[in-house]
Amino acid sequence: MIKGKFITLEGSEGSGKSTQSALICDYLRKQGKDVVQLREPGGVKISESIRNLLLDVKNEAMSHECETLLYMAARAQIVQETIEPALKSGKIIICDRFLDSTIVYQGCGHGMDIEFIKKLGTFATHGIKPDLTLLFDIEVKEGLSRTNVKKDRIELRPIEYHEKVRRGYLELAEIEPQRIKVIKVDAPKEEIFNRVQVHLDKVVRP
Amino acid sequence: MIKGKFITLEGSEGSGKSTQSALICDYLRKQGKDVVQLREPGGVKISESIRNLLLDVKNEAMSHECETLLYMAARAQIVQETIEPALKSGKIIICDRFLDSTIVYQGCGHGMDIEFIKKLGTFATHGIKPDLTLLFDIEVKEGLSRTNVKKDRIELRPIEYHEKVRRGYLELAEIEPQRIKVIKVDAPKEEIFNRVQVHLDKVVRP
Repeated sequence: MIKGKFITLEGSEGSGKSTQSALICDYLRKQGKDVVQLREPGGVKISESIRNLLLDVKNEAMSHECETLLYMAARAQIVQETIEPALKSGKIIICDRFLDSTIVYQGCGHGMDIEFIKKLGTFATHGIKPDLTLLFDIEVKEGLSRTNVKKDRIELRPIEYHEKVRRGYLELAEIEPQRIKVIKVDAPKEEIFNRVQVHLDKVVRP
Repeated sequence: MIKGKFITLEGSEGSGKSTQSALICDYLRKQGKDVVQLREPGGVKISESIRNLLLDVKNEAMSHECETLLYMAARAQIVQETIEPALKSGKIIICDRFLDSTIVYQGCGHGMDIEFIKKLGTFATHGIKPDLTLLFDIEVKEGLSRTNVKKDRIELRPIEYHEKVRRGYLELAEIEPQRIKVIKVDAPKEEIFNRVQVHLDKVVRP
């Protein structure tokens, strides 16, 4: 049934995911591949509305449970509206964030039950898993210094929170080394992309 | 820890919940009780924003999973922001819809996994259950004829959907007869309120 490829980009704030997402899409499109570029939360109208709620700094009263459920709601919508149909028709999806983000930001970051988050994830995603996850790892302070001056509700959290997120990501990569490839962000973007390409070419033959 | 009383009103479209909610609050306030009147989805700022997404007829593409998760997100927020603190401080909460609505509208109506919805419910509500649920039961066509001319996304669903919702409610009442009291809506609102009062006085002593 699933014929396409699903590739996700993960990493803490300022790790350069969106830059690499653009480079990956360019690279694949130059090969004539049918590529869909997405970002989470968002990507379709309903999920972008949910994104606005999630990132709005005025919503500082949002409970951890509400936040977790909103991320999952946005995910459920983009899965049904875009990801499932695109994969069935053989397209390649490049998605900036997916379920791993909720596991580390809400699970590791807020200390919520990770096993329950995974069950929620199966419900929201219909069990779809990425074929490849590129994890961009950057030192927390360095990453935060690269984000916009006007920070969103998540970026504004204390450095300890972002440290938990980073550690959570690296632990996930240890548990699933076949799927999750860690890319150290310690070089110019072209050099980072060279490292990305090594993993990409194994999943999407050039 | 929990000192207040939590009373929910349930029922399909046009069953007169909001009218009875107002009558109940008046009745209790005249007794000098400290009453909080709420509605779901909504009741607090973040949840009202989620309500707008849920009821907007333009969001007809919303998946059943997304819809279920959004109702739960709105619920998680109102529980943490209002319901839990109010119950701890001894107040009486009168809430138009709660978890039973998701069980029947998304579970029975859409055929989603009811056991999973209950688990989601425990996560969203921290396990808080109503002391009393008043279920207003009305014949589906009669109820729909009482709703606004401008119908919302849920009200616009076909009659078969609303029949499943009604049956779902009556089944819940059979499973939990101690908590859920069925009130037949077949009389003027004052007479309906007399029936409500019988159950109310047992939970909140006049």
